[in-house]
Amino acid sequence: MANVDVVVVGAGVSGLVTADRVRAAGRTVVVLEARGRVGGRTLSEPVPPVGTDSEADPKPLAGLVVDSGAGWVAPDQTLLLAELERFGIATTPQVRPGDALMSMRGKSRRYTDAARSFDPVTTADIAQGMLRFSAAAEKVDVAAPWRGEHAARYDAQTFESWIRRTCLTGKGRDYFRLACEAVLATAPQNVSLLHVLFYAQSGGGLLHLLTTGGGAHDARVVGGMQQVAERLAEDLGQWVRLYEPVSTIMHDADGISVHSESGATTAHRVVVTVPPALASSIDYLPGLPQDRTLLTQRMPHGSVVKVHAVYRRPFWRDAALSGEIASDQGPTKVVFDTSPPDDAYGVLTVLVDGEDAVRLGSMDADRARDAVLRGLASHLGPKAMDPVGYLAKDWTAEEWTRGCYGAHLPPGAWTQVGSALRTPVGRIHWAGTETAERWCGYVDGAIASGERAAAEVLAALP
Amino acid sequence: MANVDVVVVGAGVSGLVTADRVRAAGRTVVVLEARGRVGGRTLSEPVPPVGTDSEADPKPLAGLVVDSGAGWVAPDQTLLLAELERFGIATTPQVRPGDALMSMRGKSRRYTDAARSFDPVTTADIAQGMLRFSAAAEKVDVAAPWRGEHAARYDAQTFESWIRRTCLTGKGRDYFRLACEAVLATAPQNVSLLHVLFYAQSGGGLLHLLTTGGGAHDARVVGGMQQVAERLAEDLGQWVRLYEPVSTIMHDADGISVHSESGATTAHRVVVTVPPALASSIDYLPGLPQDRTLLTQRMPHGSVVKVHAVYRRPFWRDAALSGEIASDQGPTKVVFDTSPPDDAYGVLTVLVDGEDAVRLGSMDADRARDAVLRGLASHLGPKAMDPVGYLAKDWTAEEWTRGCYGAHLPPGAWTQVGSALRTPVGRIHWAGTETAERWCGYVDGAIASGERAAAEVLAALP
Repeated sequence: MANVDVVVVGAGVSGLVTADRVRAAGRTVVVLEARGRVGGRTLSEPVPPVGTDSEADPKPLAGLVVDSGAGWVAPDQTLLLAELERFGIATTPQVRPGDALMSMRGKSRRYTDAARSFDPVTTADIAQGMLRFSAAAEKVDVAAPWRGEHAARYDAQTFESWIRRTCLTGKGRDYFRLACEAVLATAPQNVSLLHVLFYAQSGGGLLHLLTTGGGAHDARVVGGMQQVAERLAEDLGQWVRLYEPVSTIMHDADGISVHSESGATTAHRVVVTVPPALASSIDYLPGLPQDRTLLTQRMPHGSVVKVHAVYRRPFWRDAALSGEIASDQGPTKVVFDTSPPDDAYGVLTVLVDGEDAVRLGSMDADRARDAVLRGLASHLGPKAMDPVGYLAKDWTAEEWTRGCYGAHLPPGAWTQVGSALRTPVGRIHWAGTETAERWCGYVDGAIASGERAAAEVLAALP
Repeated sequence: MANVDVVVVGAGVSGLVTADRVRAAGRTVVVLEARGRVGGRTLSEPVPPVGTDSEADPKPLAGLVVDSGAGWVAPDQTLLLAELERFGIATTPQVRPGDALMSMRGKSRRYTDAARSFDPVTTADIAQGMLRFSAAAEKVDVAAPWRGEHAARYDAQTFESWIRRTCLTGKGRDYFRLACEAVLATAPQNVSLLHVLFYAQSGGGLLHLLTTGGGAHDARVVGGMQQVAERLAEDLGQWVRLYEPVSTIMHDADGISVHSESGATTAHRVVVTVPPALASSIDYLPGLPQDRTLLTQRMPHGSVVKVHAVYRRPFWRDAALSGEIASDQGPTKVVFDTSPPDDAYGVLTVLVDGEDAVRLGSMDADRARDAVLRGLASHLGPKAMDPVGYLAKDWTAEEWTRGCYGAHLPPGAWTQVGSALRTPVGRIHWAGTETAERWCGYVDGAIASGERAAAEVLAALP
């Protein structure tokens, strides 16, 4: 006799959506979560004030919550927008008045129109690169990237090889390198061209992923993205169990037995929703098929430190700057103004990606903060050196995540073993944003993956 | 109080050598091994007869032992040769009388001189490719591949990108692809050019790795390679503990506590000698530094099924064939005659590498055997269809190995996080053939890594 119909491993957005849909269909479910909180790679937090000893109960800045995890919503992320509407959670536009900054190879440029962020020659080079990229991406089958005429050729090379071959100017190359880091949190030499094409197409195109108004960074969630997971978990109540890291999944023709901190839970089906590196560290008895093992050995996670620097007010607006910065100088390569709607504080979000994140994560906290603030000051002036609040979240250091935004595929993996990504193994099903066809790597993709996995297990239940 | 001075995780050759050297210096050591045997990726086995039910106690072929794991010795593998001499273990030359076969794009060619294995145009193309490869490899610092003038450029591309750019003929390209599969057990699109250059240079050059007489396949071990591990383990006696998979390593300024099946063992230092994918599935408390975590997420293992087909006699010699085959048609792309010195049987060893291994591993045993025997028959005639013994070892399916010959690095990994490969983390030291500067991926490299790790811990012990 099974304890429940379905066990879900992981209480991130994909796991909670899986459980929500299974329960809505009248089936029983339990969610086992390793951490003491729900939300996975969404995490909405207060910001501690600067200069206080963290040991001595620092009072967080009043009324302020920032997203140390996923933070933005695109207008075409219909699944995420539907969840936000269901729970009555509001969004606020990302676009701010004033000029953005583009700083490359020692030259800084102010612009409002993104098409004028570079000199005409660089702009032309980026445009022809973007055109070629989009033409190739349009041909990728996001449901099965290993298919298609050029899949093998695209998957045999790194994105860096494509950049060197395609771009004619140094700044053009640097632009695509920065785009790769900003979108995948890893350097272009680490990733298959096919994977970048898939990932961009999965989210509506590379330009769409890099755009604020109307694009992937169109809006933010008032009160924080983690609310989605928290509200889903509230509805599930006792069926979400925290502090229950899963060590072993036993599976055979009769059922499933999932072993966690407090013992074994039996079920008809299990949905594993944790990221690939964590999924592969669970013991499966019997072991998984080779293509699955080979795939998870080849899905490293990106590296991100997400930093929030909070100021008394958004002082950069005095200089008619929007707070949006793109730069080739780490650690402050990608910056957004994420001040709350009432401008009670001025908030800058710094996305420190890839090698910069690894470097920052290896510094002690004071040196790391100094490096970030100096970076901000180089763009916005000395006032950036004096925040009233500061918070840095290093996702690679998280035992139950091991790197953000998600996992990426090096050359060869998609075409050789990519079909194992979503294929159930007996009674074991796979979810998580990495398994999504649309908005892979985003919250919307996490929801899509949960809905798909729920449909799979519901169809298979006795 | 520590139980012992040093705990070694893994009783493969590197672990046993580590323990042997620590003990020789008068220190105490215990080796914890997950399997019920020693030897790791060396495994010398009898061959079951064909056609008997494995349930019904099949008597193995009398007097025959084959190496299902590492099997060859090169004349410049001085560390391995020294261990063989220490234990009085003999070797026998690999080279056989008769012609070798090279079969590419539907054309088969007999040759004795390797320089004549192709038509003159293909030979010239391979020669210019080999020259360019060697010139680049010579510049790689095997002690620190991330250093050096061109390291970043070599590490930004796949070996497949190099092949397409360098070779002028289709057969030339196929030759280097086959070389990659044969040497690294993975396709050239999976691996960084820098890694292939390093790996080849580490073993004395690509041509050296592909050569029988005088090269990496110069000789075999009479009685089997696993004897090295078995004799080392005999000397260590009770200090080698089998069936003790290590789950957790706790470490702090005071010492180490290694948790395995039977409980905790405390020590001053621990040497983890298991392959990267296994090392990363151990829980470390506190967690490892980011660069180490990022590295092991990016060290997938190769895929190999090593097959032995045994015949009443080496019938191919009747046609003046040596039994050595190179082909572009899987699963029998790489074949050697490994008959015992007295020719009591005719034995063919088939190395099924990379995607061919994954494909073979996913078939049921009968279909897989049929595919291999048909491949042999296509080169050696219909007699190959009737072996008296047959044994296939799929290393990816081994829970305590997860792929052979070793781990490889995709683009970007060496230059970004390669320095974490050997760097101790507090009281935790790393060994295993993947950590070797010389003969990385070979038994000789495993010995070298054990000697280095032993020297590290001996210097650090109180």
